[in-house]
Formats: sequence, C-alpha cells, structure tokens
Amino acid sequence: MEYVKKPKTKRGEITLGRICDAAEELFAQNGFYATEIHDITKKAGVAAGTFYVYFPNKKSVFLYLMDDLGRKLRRTIRLAKMNSADDSFIELERVTFRAWFAFVKEHYGLFRIVWQSQFVDAEMFKSYYERFSSGYIDELGKSLQKGETRDLDPVLISYALMGVYSFVALKCLVFDGSEPDENAIDQLVEFISRGLSSS
Amino acid sequence: MEYVKKPKTKRGEITLGRICDAAEELFAQNGFYATEIHDITKKAGVAAGTFYVYFPNKKSVFLYLMDDLGRKLRRTIRLAKMNSADDSFIELERVTFRAWFAFVKEHYGLFRIVWQSQFVDAEMFKSYYERFSSGYIDELGKSLQKGETRDLDPVLISYALMGVYSFVALKCLVFDGSEPDENAIDQLVEFISRGLSSS
Repeated sequence: MEYVKKPKTKRGEITLGRICDAAEELFAQNGFYATEIHDITKKAGVAAGTFYVYFPNKKSVFLYLMDDLGRKLRRTIRLAKMNSADDSFIELERVTFRAWFAFVKEHYGLFRIVWQSQFVDAEMFKSYYERFSSGYIDELGKSLQKGETRDLDPVLISYALMGVYSFVALKCLVFDGSEPDENAIDQLVEFISRGLSSS
Repeated sequence: MEYVKKPKTKRGEITLGRICDAAEELFAQNGFYATEIHDITKKAGVAAGTFYVYFPNKKSVFLYLMDDLGRKLRRTIRLAKMNSADDSFIELERVTFRAWFAFVKEHYGLFRIVWQSQFVDAEMFKSYYERFSSGYIDELGKSLQKGETRDLDPVLISYALMGVYSFVALKCLVFDGSEPDENAIDQLVEFISRGLSSS
C-alpha cells in the first residue's frame, strides 16, 4: 500500500520528513482525532497546501507514519543483529533489547501512535504486529534447528515475546522515563532464554 | 477517586449497569472521542437526563468504566487463585491465564478502552497497570520465599508478565477470535515458570 506521493527531489524529501516529524509529535501528544492537518503544517513550518503534495488526507499521513516507524524499527533491529559478533539466540535477544529500548527512547510516542491505530485502521494495527511476529518466527525456527530452543508454537511465543518487549519499554521509558540498564537487560534475556530453552 | 454518584436503589443500580454496558461497547467500537453522551443513553435505552444522575460528564463515565473493568478483572483473578487447590506458582499462573482469557473474551474491547486512556487520562492509564503490577509483585515475593522462583527485579518481571498476558490475548482473542486451548496455556505457563525458575 502506498500512503504517500514520494518526493522526487532532495528538497521534497526534507519537506516530507518535516511533515512526518510534526505529525509524529502531534499524533503522540494529542492523538489522531484532535490533530488537524493545519496543526501539522504549522508545526512543520510548511505552507498549508504543501501537505497535499504528499498526502490526500490526515489518515494517509497517520498510516504512512506508522508503516514508516515499523519499517525503521525492523531495520534497526536487523542491523543490530547483523552487527552482533555472537549469533546465539541469547545474544541476539540482548542486542534486540538494546536496539528496541534506544528506538522507543527516540520515538517516545510509539505506543500512543500504534495503539490508537486500533481505531484509525484496525487492519493496519494487526498487520503492524504480524510483520514483527513473522520476523520472530524465523528467528525461533533457526534457534530450534540449532537446538537452542525447544519446539513451541512459534506464533504464540512471538506474541508473548513482543509483549515482554512492549510492556517493559512502556514501564521503564514511558512511565518512569529511564532506560533499562544492562542488569535489567540481563534479567530479561535470561528470563526469555531459560523460558524457551531446550534443556 | 469517585467518578460516579452511586445509586441508592436496586433500580438505580440496574440503570447504571445499562449505561456502563452501553458505554463500554461504544468506547470500544468508536472510541472516546467519537462517542457522545446521547449515543450512550440512546444505546442504554434511558432518558438523556438520566446520565447526569450518575456522571457529570463523558470523561467520568470512561474513567469509572476503566476503573471498574480493572477491579472486576483483579477480583476474577483473585477468586480463581483462591479456588485453586494447588497454590504452586505454576498452577496459579495456569488459573490466572484461564481467568484472564475468559475475561477478555467477555470484554473484547478491553485493549481498545485501556490503551486509548493514554490520551483520555495518562495517569489513569499508568495506575491501571501499576495496580496489576503490585499484585504480581506480591505473588513473586511469595514464590521467591518458597524457592520456586529466583531473585529478580519484581517490578521489571511484573511488566514482562503483563506483556505476555496482554499480547497473547490480543493475538488469540482479538486478532484471531479464538480462545487459547489448554495446550497453548501449558506452553505459556511452562515458558514463564522455566524463565523464572530458581533451579
């Protein structure tokens, strides 16, 4: 699905980026319904009509933003895993936690945006998590083959793990405004790896 | 905090119940912002003015409803645990999963209501989870004393576990519309108990 008319110039990309940054902040702060297109263009510092160069309406910028956040997050996690010298399940979980917490710190409104999408577009909300789930299922398949984890329902476990990631970030970063330290990450990684262990 | 003017008669209680049921369905379906008081009274089949006998405004019925859902859920889980013949950590988790899934099945809009409260009242959203967390912290303390679980940060773990509960219910009941079977509950209980085990 294409929610955006892609810019053809560098300048256009910068303008689109400004619109998206403004939209992210406003949707996180005030929500989809209380945000108007002119709030977005005002905050972005662009002319009112400029919005329509890229998006037909408010819903399309919301869906584009959410899609973009999901894509950026998956790329961030993929890169963190690729750069990990150790590719054991436990180490890949560790680098994923670090990358995830850093991402939420940067995008503090992530839960507000994603969770309100239940109303804006319920299918989008579902597919946001299904995409993460399928990445996790691949990883669980590999660690099962390597004998690191036991044979469990990968779909069920992928959601259980997304729950751990989400709620710990919600507690630490959103509620308490503090990043989980390495000791906390150790505890979480150990909880998950023991929980799924084949031995 | 009191969000409601408590009814003094049985008839008043029934009316309040009808208003709350209608509000729960509308807030879940259309959200807080798209729901008007007259939508609630119309759906409840009560006179428009009757709403104000119990609530001063729309926000108060939303907060009362959320508070009430949280209280009912905690009571449901407490009773399920009390009625469990076996009070080991693993069995208490099992009965909690069963009670939780049955509750979400009954209140399919729970995530929509609770997660949109981030915008309606961010403090209420936070305290909703903190109350569940403190119940969990007590349970983790007991199982630590009994040597069933190891010494971990109970706050961190309580949120990790709430994440497991929430996301599995979201996937199975909301996305797929099917209740997790006993095999799924076995896998989840084993994941958690192995993950936290002292041995």
